[in-house]
Amino acid sequence: MAKKMVYLFNEVKGGNTTENIILLGNKGAQLAEMTFIGLPVPPGFTITTEACTAFYGKGKKWPPGLESQVRKKLEHLQRKMGKKLGNPKSPLFLSVRSGSYVSMPGMMDTVLNLGMNDESVVALAKQTGNERGAWDSYRRFIQMFGDVVMGLEHSDFEVVLDGVKKKHGARYDTDLNTENMREVVKEYKKLVKEKKGVSFPTNPWKQLRMSIDAVFNSWNIPRAVKYRKINNLRDDAGTGVNVQVMVFGNLGWDSGTGVGFTRNPSTGTKEHYGEYLLNAQGEDVVAGIRTPKHIDDLKKEMPGAYKGLVKIFGVLEKHYRDMQDFEFTVEKGKLYVLQTRTGKRTAQAAVKIAVDMVKEGLINRKTAVMRIKPEQLDQLLHKQIDPKAKKKEDAVAKGLPASPGAAVGKVVFTADKAVKMKEENEKEKVVLVRTETSPDDIEGMNAAEGILTARGGMTSHAAVVARGMGKCCVAGCEAISVDEKKGVFRIPDKDVTVKEGDLVSIDGSTGEVFLGQLGLIEPGISGEFGEMMKWVNGFKKLGVKANADTPHDSKISRKFGAEGIGLCRTEHMFFKPERIMAVREMILADTPDERKKALDKILPYQRNDFKGLFKVMSGMPIIIRLLDPPLHEFLPREENEIKELADHMGVSLQKIKDTIKGLEEFNPMLGFRGCRLGVKYPEINEMQVRAIFKAALDAKKEGYEPLPEIEVPLIGSVTEFVMIKEIIKRVAAEMRVRGKVKYKIGTMIEVPRAAITADEIAKEADFLSFGTNDLTQMGCGFSRDDAGKFLGIYVERGIYKRDPFQSIDQEGIGKLMKICIEKARKAKPGIEIGICGEHGGDPESVRFCHRLGLTDVSCSPYRVPIAKLSAAQAAIEDEKSGG
Amino acid sequence: MAKKMVYLFNEVKGGNTTENIILLGNKGAQLAEMTFIGLPVPPGFTITTEACTAFYGKGKKWPPGLESQVRKKLEHLQRKMGKKLGNPKSPLFLSVRSGSYVSMPGMMDTVLNLGMNDESVVALAKQTGNERGAWDSYRRFIQMFGDVVMGLEHSDFEVVLDGVKKKHGARYDTDLNTENMREVVKEYKKLVKEKKGVSFPTNPWKQLRMSIDAVFNSWNIPRAVKYRKINNLRDDAGTGVNVQVMVFGNLGWDSGTGVGFTRNPSTGTKEHYGEYLLNAQGEDVVAGIRTPKHIDDLKKEMPGAYKGLVKIFGVLEKHYRDMQDFEFTVEKGKLYVLQTRTGKRTAQAAVKIAVDMVKEGLINRKTAVMRIKPEQLDQLLHKQIDPKAKKKEDAVAKGLPASPGAAVGKVVFTADKAVKMKEENEKEKVVLVRTETSPDDIEGMNAAEGILTARGGMTSHAAVVARGMGKCCVAGCEAISVDEKKGVFRIPDKDVTVKEGDLVSIDGSTGEVFLGQLGLIEPGISGEFGEMMKWVNGFKKLGVKANADTPHDSKISRKFGAEGIGLCRTEHMFFKPERIMAVREMILADTPDERKKALDKILPYQRNDFKGLFKVMSGMPIIIRLLDPPLHEFLPREENEIKELADHMGVSLQKIKDTIKGLEEFNPMLGFRGCRLGVKYPEINEMQVRAIFKAALDAKKEGYEPLPEIEVPLIGSVTEFVMIKEIIKRVAAEMRVRGKVKYKIGTMIEVPRAAITADEIAKEADFLSFGTNDLTQMGCGFSRDDAGKFLGIYVERGIYKRDPFQSIDQEGIGKLMKICIEKARKAKPGIEIGICGEHGGDPESVRFCHRLGLTDVSCSPYRVPIAKLSAAQAAIEDEKSGG
Repeated sequence: MAKKMVYLFNEVKGGNTTENIILLGNKGAQLAEMTFIGLPVPPGFTITTEACTAFYGKGKKWPPGLESQVRKKLEHLQRKMGKKLGNPKSPLFLSVRSGSYVSMPGMMDTVLNLGMNDESVVALAKQTGNERGAWDSYRRFIQMFGDVVMGLEHSDFEVVLDGVKKKHGARYDTDLNTENMREVVKEYKKLVKEKKGVSFPTNPWKQLRMSIDAVFNSWNIPRAVKYRKINNLRDDAGTGVNVQVMVFGNLGWDSGTGVGFTRNPSTGTKEHYGEYLLNAQGEDVVAGIRTPKHIDDLKKEMPGAYKGLVKIFGVLEKHYRDMQDFEFTVEKGKLYVLQTRTGKRTAQAAVKIAVDMVKEGLINRKTAVMRIKPEQLDQLLHKQIDPKAKKKEDAVAKGLPASPGAAVGKVVFTADKAVKMKEENEKEKVVLVRTETSPDDIEGMNAAEGILTARGGMTSHAAVVARGMGKCCVAGCEAISVDEKKGVFRIPDKDVTVKEGDLVSIDGSTGEVFLGQLGLIEPGISGEFGEMMKWVNGFKKLGVKANADTPHDSKISRKFGAEGIGLCRTEHMFFKPERIMAVREMILADTPDERKKALDKILPYQRNDFKGLFKVMSGMPIIIRLLDPPLHEFLPREENEIKELADHMGVSLQKIKDTIKGLEEFNPMLGFRGCRLGVKYPEINEMQVRAIFKAALDAKKEGYEPLPEIEVPLIGSVTEFVMIKEIIKRVAAEMRVRGKVKYKIGTMIEVPRAAITADEIAKEADFLSFGTNDLTQMGCGFSRDDAGKFLGIYVERGIYKRDPFQSIDQEGIGKLMKICIEKARKAKPGIEIGICGEHGGDPESVRFCHRLGLTDVSCSPYRVPIAKLSAAQAAIEDEKSGG
Repeated sequence: MAKKMVYLFNEVKGGNTTENIILLGNKGAQLAEMTFIGLPVPPGFTITTEACTAFYGKGKKWPPGLESQVRKKLEHLQRKMGKKLGNPKSPLFLSVRSGSYVSMPGMMDTVLNLGMNDESVVALAKQTGNERGAWDSYRRFIQMFGDVVMGLEHSDFEVVLDGVKKKHGARYDTDLNTENMREVVKEYKKLVKEKKGVSFPTNPWKQLRMSIDAVFNSWNIPRAVKYRKINNLRDDAGTGVNVQVMVFGNLGWDSGTGVGFTRNPSTGTKEHYGEYLLNAQGEDVVAGIRTPKHIDDLKKEMPGAYKGLVKIFGVLEKHYRDMQDFEFTVEKGKLYVLQTRTGKRTAQAAVKIAVDMVKEGLINRKTAVMRIKPEQLDQLLHKQIDPKAKKKEDAVAKGLPASPGAAVGKVVFTADKAVKMKEENEKEKVVLVRTETSPDDIEGMNAAEGILTARGGMTSHAAVVARGMGKCCVAGCEAISVDEKKGVFRIPDKDVTVKEGDLVSIDGSTGEVFLGQLGLIEPGISGEFGEMMKWVNGFKKLGVKANADTPHDSKISRKFGAEGIGLCRTEHMFFKPERIMAVREMILADTPDERKKALDKILPYQRNDFKGLFKVMSGMPIIIRLLDPPLHEFLPREENEIKELADHMGVSLQKIKDTIKGLEEFNPMLGFRGCRLGVKYPEINEMQVRAIFKAALDAKKEGYEPLPEIEVPLIGSVTEFVMIKEIIKRVAAEMRVRGKVKYKIGTMIEVPRAAITADEIAKEADFLSFGTNDLTQMGCGFSRDDAGKFLGIYVERGIYKRDPFQSIDQEGIGKLMKICIEKARKAKPGIEIGICGEHGGDPESVRFCHRLGLTDVSCSPYRVPIAKLSAAQAAIEDEKSGG
C-alpha cells in the first residue's frame, strides 16, 4: 500500500507541531491546528511535502497512490458539504494553495474558485442572486488558472478585457454588465485555445489535477529558488498543497463575512471587537463601498453566528494566549473561520494586552516583555499627527524619518529667526527649514517645534541633535530645495513654493511633509507601561543611561528611567549667546595667557551648567566629555557677524578672516578636534575640568551627591589619553578634590586605532565608552553626512543589512568592538565599557551590546525605555538559549 | 690590595670588546682600542665604571685605593711626556671626560685644559708665543671648571665677560687683548670667591680630584637620569672617567693640527684626503679664519709627520674596514691621533666605497649592502641645488621637503598658465605656486619643474603627485600667502612679494625657497651603483614595484629596477584636456544610457593608455586600480569653465551648478568614491575593464605579454568586492579573454573594516594591497590634509614616533595590518599581499613590511632603489637574528 500522502485537516494529530510543519508545510499545519482546537474551519485536505518530493523524484509525475488518495478525500469533502464539484445545482468550489515548511510569501502559486464551468456558474448565479458576480468570478478563474496553471501571459488576458471594455465604451471593469462578462469569458476561452491549442478544461477534476501539478511545479520556479537561496532554505523540502472548500458570504442575507479581534487593537481593552457585512465577500469589506457594522450588531442580525463567534473569541485567546485577528464567513447561517493570526496593535494596546494577560494568568512576565516591539514604544513618547487628519497622498515631500514625533509651525529659514519669533511670542510655533544644520543652529533648533533639512542622513547633525532634544526632524528631504537667502523652499516636482511664515506640518516618524496645519495627538503613557518597565528593569543585565547635556534633558532622562548620564557633551554649552563671544576670543587668542583670559570668562558658565546637572542627577554617575568639535564650528560665518566680532575684540577684520581660513578643513571629521585640542591647548581642558570639580564641590556642600566621570574624546593613542589624564589629576590635586568627590577618568573608543590598542588604553582608563557613530564613520570609511549619496543603494543591495549609522554593523564594526573589548578586558578585567553613540537607542544594537558583554548603553532620553526593553529581551533570550 | 680601578690606555687588553666597554665605558674602550691597534693616541688612563659605582656605594666618596692608583698613573703620564702638571717650565695639561657603556651625548660633564694656573699659563704663553691665547685658555678653563665642577651658573661668567667687554668698548670676544683677558681671569676668580666662598683651586692635583668627582656626580644629574629612562639604559652601570694628556698643535711651526679621511668623502675615490693648519689648534681649522692646506702639502712641510699619517691611513682602513674620519695634532714634530670615527660621505661616495671595499676584500657584499643608508640614495636620483650656489640664510621661506630634487623657474599660479607657457616655449621652466593643488592641476604640475604650495602636509595631493612624478615639491610652506587671482605670493615675514614670471629656486629635499635663479647639479649614477643594486636584488625577499600611471613613468620604473607596477591610478588619465569634457558629460548624465554614451568617448583613450603601459611593462604584472576619486574632483570650479561646459552640453548653467552642489561633500575623504562609484554606476567600471582587456588583447597580438591585475579600490565589505568582480568577469567572458590574457582580480585594504574582515575578502580576491595612506587616515582618524594643525606637536611630544604618513605607525596601524594579514592568510594561505601607499618608499616601513611577511611593496619610481635596498637590509638583518 502506498504511503499516506493526503491528510484531511481533522486527521492531523497535534496541530502545529514541527513534525507536522515539515510534513504538511506551514499553512497545512496551521489549518490542522485551527481544526484541532475546534475552530469551524472550512474542510479540506493537505497533500504532503513528501508527495511533492516524490513528484520530482518521478520526473514530475504523481507518485503511485496519490490520485486515489486525493479522490477519496475529495469525496469526503463533497459528502460533508453536500455539494459536488461542477454540480449544476449545488456546486462545490475549492481553493488550491501552496505551503512550504517556512512561509515564502508570494513566491508560489494559488488557484481560487476552482470548479467553475458553464454549468456551475449558472448555479452560483442563482444561489447568490448576482449573475454578473458569478460570471465575473468565472472570468477571474479562467484568468488565474490560465496564468498560473496553463502558463499564459497575464497581459494577454488584459488585452482581451480591454478590447471588450473599449467595444462597449466601458472605462472600468465595474462598467461591464452581465452580458459583457459573458463575452469576456467567451473571449478568454478563445484566447486559451489560440495560445495553447487546447480548450479550457471544464472538467473540475481535471482543473484540480492541473492545479495540484502547478503548485508542485511552482516549488522550482526561478523566483522561488532564488528566494530560498537568499533566505538559506532547503531546496529538497518541497511544498505541501492545501485543497480547501471555498465558502461564500454572499449566498443571501443569511450569509456574511467579517473580521474579528479578540481585544481592541487600538486601546488593548478586553472586549469583542471587529466588523462585518451581510451578503458579502471578503473583498467587499476591504473595498469600502459598503460600511461594515460593528460586531455587536451581529447579535441581533444573526444570533446563532454571534454565539459561535463568542465561542471562537474564547477558544482563540485560550489557545494562542495572544490577541488574535481572524477572518470569518457565514454561509447560509453556518459560521466558518478562514484564518487567524496574531493581531497588529498600537503600542498602547500592546503594553496593555501584555500586562493584562499576565494578570489574567495567560502568560508570564517574561513572555509579556518579549511581546512588545521595542521600536513601537516610541509611539508612546512623542506627539503624533492625528491619523484622521493625515492622508498619505497629501504629503508634498518625503524625507528620512530622522527623529520621531510631529510638528506644526510657521516656516523659518534661520536659527536666529526661530529664536526671535519665539522670543517675541512664546506661543509661536515654528519649523526650522535648512539645507543642513550646523552647531550654530542649536539655539534655533531648540526654539523650533521641528526641523526639516534638505540634506543629511539619519545621523546628520540635524538628526542627531533633534533626537537628543526629543524634537521631531525630517532630514535629507531631497525633494525640497532651500534658498535660505530668499527665504523660500521649493518642491520642483510639485511646483510648490513655501515662504517664510507659511504653515507646514512634518512627521518625523514617517518623514512626511504636509502643507498647512494638521491636528496633533499628545503622547500618553498608560499605567500598564510603568508596570511593564518594572519587570523590564528586573530582567535586563545592561545598564541604560541617557545622553543629556542640560538639567532639562537630565530631568527627562530620570523621568524615563535612565540610570545615569552616559554622555554629556560640553560643547553645546559653548553656543549660548552670552558665551559664544568668549569662546571666539579664546579661539582667536595668540598666546596661552590670552587664551586663559578668555577661558576664565567661560568658566563660571560651565560651572553652573555642571552644578545643575549634578543636582538633577544626584547619586547617579554623569560621564562628561571634554570639548570635542573642531574650533571652526564656533566661529561666525556671516560677514556681519565677523565684523561684530572684530569690533568687539578690537582686531582687524582680516585677522579674523585669516583665522577662520586657517581653521578650515578638508575633512573636518578627521581634523583638529577631540583630545587633539587639549594636546595643543591644554588650557581648554584645564578650564573645563576646573569647572567640573568646582561644580561638584559646590553641589556636595549643598548636600547632593555628584559622581562626575570625565571622558576624553577621540583618543587614538594611549599617550594622548595619559597627557589629558595628567591635566585632570593635576587640577584635582590643586583643588583638593580627593575625599570629597568621587570621580573617574575614562575615554571614548571612536578611532579604530584606539580599538586596536585598547589593551594599552584600558590599563590607564577607569572606563571606556564606544562612540559608535565615529567608529562606524572611520571604520567603514564613510562620513554620515555624505554617505546619503550611496548608502541607500548599499542597504538595498545587501552590502549592509541595515544603515550602519542606525544599527551597529555587527559583521564589521562589531568585530572591531569585539577585538577592543577582548584586549581591554584582558588588560583590565571587569573594566566598565559602554556605548554612547546613536546606536545605544537601537534595539538590535542594544541586543548586540548585551551579547558583547558591555556594561551599559547610553541613548537619547526619549529612547531609554526602548533600550531597556531591548536589553531585557536580550537577557531573556540569553536565558532561553542557556547563555 | 684594592681592586684595579685605573687602566692606562695601553694596559687594556683586547681594545673595544664588550667586556672593556662595560668596565671602562664606551669612550675608554675606544681609546684603548686606538692605542691597541698602534695609533699614536695621547696617553692617558681610564677610571673604571666600577670605581664610579663604588663611589656611589660609599656615599659619594672615593673608594679606598683609588687615589693612590690615580696618582701612580698620573706620574706615569708625566714621565712619559716629560711634562708636569702645573710645572712653570713644561706644564702638562689634561682633559677629563665621562664615558658610560653607551654614549650619552652631552648628558655628562667634561673638563678641558686642566692644569691651568698663574704659573702654567705663563709657560704656555711662552711655548706657543701666543700670550693672549694662553690667557684665553686660562679664562675658558676657569669658566668650564667653575660651571661643571664648582656648580656656578654659566650666565654669571657671561655677565662678567660682558662687563669687561663693555668697559673696553669691545664688541666681540676677539676684540679683547691680552691685558683684557688677564682682567677677565682676575674677575672670574673674584666671582668664584664671591659665589662659593672659596678661592679658585690653583693646585692642579686638586683640580683633577674635583674634576673626577664632578664626572662621577654627573652620572646622576637629572638630565642624565631622564636620558637613561627614555633610552632604557641601566641606572647602575656608572660612568668611566677618561683622563688624557692634552696636546697642542700651536706650539710653533713644528706643530699643527688637521683632519684626515681615509678616502675621498665626496667621490669615494681611494686617496689620502684631508686638510691641516700649522701652528694652530683644532678650533682654528673649524673657525675658517686661516685657509687649511691639502694634506698632500704636509709631505713637504713635515715629511716625518706625513709619513706617520700615511701609516695611520693604512692602520685605520685595515682595522675598521670602513672609511674613517680622524683628527690629528702634531706637537713639536710628534704626531698624535685624537679621535677617529666612521666618516660621513655623500651617497655617491658611500656606494663607491662599499663596492670598492668588497673588491679589495675588506668586507663582504652583505656588509657593503648594510653600509648604505637607503634614504641617502635619494641624492643619486634627483637634481640638486649646487651646494656652492646655495646659502642657508638666503632662503626666504621654508616648507616641508615634500618631494626631493630642486627646481628653478618662473612663478606661475595656475595649472593652465604652466601648460600654456610650456606649450609656447618648450624650454620654458616654470614653478607652479598654489595654496594647495587639486587633481585639476595634474597637467600643470606635469608641465612645471617643481611645485610650491602654502598648505598641505607630506602626503598632501601636491606632495604625493609630485613624488609620483619625480618632481621637486615644497609643500605646506605656511610662510607664504598665495593670491592666485592677483597672481602674486607674499612672504609677510620678509616683506617680499613675488609676481608671476619672477624667478624662484626651490629645494624639495630641504623645503627651502630662494628668490632668483640658483645653479643646479644633474643627477649622476656611477657604475658602482648598478653593481650594488645587483647584490641588493640577490639578498632581498620582498618584491619591489613602482606606482606609475603612464608609459613614461613606467619606463623610469623599469630603469630604476621596478619588478612591476604596484599601482596604476586610472583617474589621472581622466584629466587630460581632450578627455575631461567627456568625463564631465558622464558625471552629468541623467540615465545609464547617457552615461554609457559619454563613457564610450573615453574608452579609446583609456585603451591607448593601457596599451602603452602593457608594451613598456611587457612580462611584468601591472596592478590597475579602477576609478577612485570622488566625481566632484572632475567638475569645473570656475564660473567660465562651468559656462563652457553648459554650452558644450547644451544644458542650463543651473543644472550644472546643481550637480556640482549635489556632489559637494563635507568629508570628501569619507565620501562617494572608490568602489562606491562602481556599485552605483557599474557602467564606469565596465568601461574601464573593457579598455584594459581590449588593450591587453591588442598588445598580446603585437607580441607583448600583458599581465593586468585589476584592483578594486576602497572596499569595506566583501560584498562590494564581489559585485565589482562580477562585472569584471562578465566583461572578460564577453571579450573572450580566457586563454589569451592572464589576469587577476584583487583589492585594496584601505578601509579599517576591510582589514577586520580580510578573511572574507581574501577568499574572493587574487591579491590584496594595503593602501596605507587611507588606512592611516581612517585608522588614526585624521586626514593628511588637515593633520598639519596638530601632527607636528604629536610627533614632537612622542604620541607618534614619526609622522605616520611618512613612516607606518607600527604600534597602531601596523597592528591592524597584522590582524588583516593573519586573517587573510588563514583564509587563503599564500595570498599575495602588497602595499602601494607612500609608505612603500620609506625605508623603515619597508623593513616593517618585510617583517610582516608581505609579498611586495610599491613606491614612486624614484624610490625603487631605496625600497630595494631597505628590503635587502631587512632580509640580511633577519638572517643575522636567525629569522
